[in-house]
Amino acid sequence: MVDRIYNFSAGPATLPVDMLEQASKDIVNYSDTGIGLIEMSHRSKEFMAVAADTESLLRDLMEIPANYKVLFLQGGASSQFFMIPMNLLGSGEKASYLNTGTWSKKAIKEAQLFGDIDIAYSSEEQTFNRVPLPSDYTVDPDSEYLYFVSNNTIYGTQFSAFPKTDTILISDMSSDILSRKIDVSKFGLIFAGAQKNMGPAGVTVVIIRDDLLDKVPANIPTMLKYKTHADKDSMFNTPPCFAIYAVGEVLKWLKKKGGVEAIETINKAKASLLYDCIDSTDYYRGHAEKTSRSLMNISFNLPNSDLEGKFIKEAVKIGLNGLKGHRSIGGCRASIYNAFPTAGVEKLVAFMKDFEASNQV
Amino acid sequence: MVDRIYNFSAGPATLPVDMLEQASKDIVNYSDTGIGLIEMSHRSKEFMAVAADTESLLRDLMEIPANYKVLFLQGGASSQFFMIPMNLLGSGEKASYLNTGTWSKKAIKEAQLFGDIDIAYSSEEQTFNRVPLPSDYTVDPDSEYLYFVSNNTIYGTQFSAFPKTDTILISDMSSDILSRKIDVSKFGLIFAGAQKNMGPAGVTVVIIRDDLLDKVPANIPTMLKYKTHADKDSMFNTPPCFAIYAVGEVLKWLKKKGGVEAIETINKAKASLLYDCIDSTDYYRGHAEKTSRSLMNISFNLPNSDLEGKFIKEAVKIGLNGLKGHRSIGGCRASIYNAFPTAGVEKLVAFMKDFEASNQV
Repeated sequence: MVDRIYNFSAGPATLPVDMLEQASKDIVNYSDTGIGLIEMSHRSKEFMAVAADTESLLRDLMEIPANYKVLFLQGGASSQFFMIPMNLLGSGEKASYLNTGTWSKKAIKEAQLFGDIDIAYSSEEQTFNRVPLPSDYTVDPDSEYLYFVSNNTIYGTQFSAFPKTDTILISDMSSDILSRKIDVSKFGLIFAGAQKNMGPAGVTVVIIRDDLLDKVPANIPTMLKYKTHADKDSMFNTPPCFAIYAVGEVLKWLKKKGGVEAIETINKAKASLLYDCIDSTDYYRGHAEKTSRSLMNISFNLPNSDLEGKFIKEAVKIGLNGLKGHRSIGGCRASIYNAFPTAGVEKLVAFMKDFEASNQV
Repeated sequence: MVDRIYNFSAGPATLPVDMLEQASKDIVNYSDTGIGLIEMSHRSKEFMAVAADTESLLRDLMEIPANYKVLFLQGGASSQFFMIPMNLLGSGEKASYLNTGTWSKKAIKEAQLFGDIDIAYSSEEQTFNRVPLPSDYTVDPDSEYLYFVSNNTIYGTQFSAFPKTDTILISDMSSDILSRKIDVSKFGLIFAGAQKNMGPAGVTVVIIRDDLLDKVPANIPTMLKYKTHADKDSMFNTPPCFAIYAVGEVLKWLKKKGGVEAIETINKAKASLLYDCIDSTDYYRGHAEKTSRSLMNISFNLPNSDLEGKFIKEAVKIGLNGLKGHRSIGGCRASIYNAFPTAGVEKLVAFMKDFEASNQV
């Protein structure tokens, strides 16, 4: 039994060891209060400070402008698929979507319940192996917003430059938030489930420009209005306290690492190790077109599915877990988010070379 | 600094120490897998087993019949306020509500967005100091369901016998689930946020009779249909893994304690200690009418608010925390859920007697 294995899971995913060890202490006795973090009232001064610190760290690391609200919501990123059109699309209004994978497709399906949805671009026929260049699509001038997924976890594609548009830009950044420097002021709304780059499952971060809060129709349930949560600093009802705390601890770790710019450099280097290995041989084939490659999720194939099965099985034996690709495209996938250590990528690359040498077709 | 204090918080609330210590280990290295519980894919065989065990323990402890689904949802109990009418009330249909406190009032407000709401009973004019007897109200025969809150956390009232009705009975049991034996087969739907009697904040349990799953209108968002989650065993999207795990650990503790019947006996004895103290003097006055008294939350007043402030402050000094009453009625409140130790109640009672003796008006 290895002490700690390398976990390539797409999410929930590897977290910083420092953060896990801190949580392990705080869960039993938070900061010598005599009770555990998960037993504290969400209105206690201790937990209010935890929530405020988490928000403030996120603002700091992402340089979020003052006219944006940061919300910590429940229901997963999947709940944003309907909350966005429910809050931002009036009756008969239109929105544009870029369809670059499973998650954008699901978002489109929910949006269609609320308005007229223009699919400005789709790479579905190419098994979502690319994201578009700005020249690949036009956005309907009547659209209230343009929605896209910045990184497609399953297919291993990522927008290296963001869409430019005159309308409000909205992005699902679940699988690459905090992995690279972005300019929040270019967006109307950014959201991300925590369980890839930010923490454990159970909380979704929404960053919303405050002028959008009042667009919401009157007759929707209180809990589904962004404004409800914005007005109460995400404390309208009991928030998912542990998940918010854990995000805060991950952010502290990231700050210590040097912040977003520092981690971006590391992320580029980590992904290069893997892509260089893939590009050095015909044995491994990357799923994504080169210009659309993700720094977070590397989806690739071996010469055949028998070899892929053997590859995944042998990897587990040496402590490389979670390399099975998503069922929708099969093959292999290495998810290497912020907290995934470079040493694990190096070990995978060494294993890939060994495996290729001993398993020729 | 005392090692462990007594935490009378209304929720998130005291959890079993055994459970906290187990979580502290599992969070860093779950069952010797080499990764922490909160880093594991929700589709890993390890986490799938955690979720299945949690459900199976709950079914076992509550004797939930086979024709009921158990769902682990996000969004807090507050999200059930709208999900229930959204899923169960067709256009123009009617439902009846018993208004016995802040939480039923909020539920009524959300339900009014979806249908014709009949408030069959309200104790609002008496500051919600009682719950009704069956003879206190009649339910509109056209109602699709009757909704009530089994225990009112803020006011310290509790239904000792449940409403009898020919229509579907729905109950918010957030603050007394698993505290006493109930017959699930009498209900159409039971729900409860975890953070009082079941675990940490971040997951809400819904127990729903399976014939109700198909009543849902077609054009509501996928994530808001009970059926979506029932069909996928609460794994339609990434669930709040840690909270589900933690509920499982609390349930293991409860089973070891002897289950629901055993804890009910303990709960009655714990509450009696406090009520006997209150009834033995005019110094302390219980908020609830005697026949409506809660075994979970004991709300009481002292001769005046200055003394209440002093009482709360002095209690903290000897490790009795969280005794401040809810802002809507003031005074004091002791929340003594399943995991709250009898020794803590005994210490509070001793303190109450001392305080009364040294603080006469």
